[in-house]
Amino acid sequence: MKLYDCTQAPNPRRVRIFLAEKGIDIDKVQIDILSGENLQADFLAVNSRGVLPVLELDDGTRIDETVAICQYFEVLQPSPSLMGDDAKTKALISSRQRQVEFDGLLPLADIVRNSVPAFSTRALPGREGVDAIEALVARGINSFNQFLDRLDKTLGESQYLAGDAFSIADITALCVIDFAQWAQIEIPKHHENTLRWYSLVSQRESVKA
Amino acid sequence: MKLYDCTQAPNPRRVRIFLAEKGIDIDKVQIDILSGENLQADFLAVNSRGVLPVLELDDGTRIDETVAICQYFEVLQPSPSLMGDDAKTKALISSRQRQVEFDGLLPLADIVRNSVPAFSTRALPGREGVDAIEALVARGINSFNQFLDRLDKTLGESQYLAGDAFSIADITALCVIDFAQWAQIEIPKHHENTLRWYSLVSQRESVKA
Repeated sequence: MKLYDCTQAPNPRRVRIFLAEKGIDIDKVQIDILSGENLQADFLAVNSRGVLPVLELDDGTRIDETVAICQYFEVLQPSPSLMGDDAKTKALISSRQRQVEFDGLLPLADIVRNSVPAFSTRALPGREGVDAIEALVARGINSFNQFLDRLDKTLGESQYLAGDAFSIADITALCVIDFAQWAQIEIPKHHENTLRWYSLVSQRESVKA
Repeated sequence: MKLYDCTQAPNPRRVRIFLAEKGIDIDKVQIDILSGENLQADFLAVNSRGVLPVLELDDGTRIDETVAICQYFEVLQPSPSLMGDDAKTKALISSRQRQVEFDGLLPLADIVRNSVPAFSTRALPGREGVDAIEALVARGINSFNQFLDRLDKTLGESQYLAGDAFSIADITALCVIDFAQWAQIEIPKHHENTLRWYSLVSQRESVKA
């Protein structure tokens, strides 16, 4: 079993932290997204979508999509639980996790992909010849600021993002907040709930993965 | 328990079909996205994100995000399984499902939201004051065509989208294909695998839900 990984990118980091929380260590193959290695023939033969991370099982099955890979390990090794134990907890964690993806990670990706010169003709993941659209940067910043406001409100209601236990939703949110530094976006100083949470989750050993 | 629903929109339909497959019937409250009812105070009090569907449990807990709602019912009533039975099947279905969301539904939403006049200042779900960006229509059409090509290839390898059993991945793909008619996009006539699959899944009683 091995993981196609890229240390600079937020999605592979989500899987690495998830695995570290479970104490699972697997082989990793580095693919450099910034230089476009993910769009070269060698990697496209592994994953025709050209995106990372990808998990390759010993039987050759390949699973892409971050949450699907996490799901695999959650079933294989349920403890410590990171995706919930019962119907309601599973649904709440899944919902919060997806909110971070759609409301936080997607606008952040728009900001980065449509402003960083290295992505000027790769404004969507996994593809070449997609020109940046400048208007998406401002739209992305507005959306991301609304996400940060909502995040701070949610974190005022519970210790972690989906209740009183650390979960995959926290992993996604942490990777998004850290990746936002690429876009020079920091947690606003008056977002005390988010700052408290960020300090708490950043102390976990797994975040170094 | 009740579901905040919108009959015209693709995401609530995904939940309705999922419930119909499991034979679960719950109360539904219609919210009209086209006229902006989801952005009015009454609904924002239910879900501050302004998006549909939302599941409200009897204890008052509200779960938004389509897949999280489906996840809730999958745990509550595992049979018939729509999200997989073991680690590998669960991961593969989740992966395929997410590919349809990110590669199919998101570009399609870009096409519709940035071209249909009713959404000219609501180009992102759940928000007002987001102006349409015309360039996203062409980008969306390109992305969606690539999605259709990949879908046809995948459906040449198995009966359903994630193997030999009908799953949530098929539900998402069916809702995307049907919603594409809003953008005057049909399955290309030479996509024989997709046409075979579409004919098969369209015959299920649940698609009328």
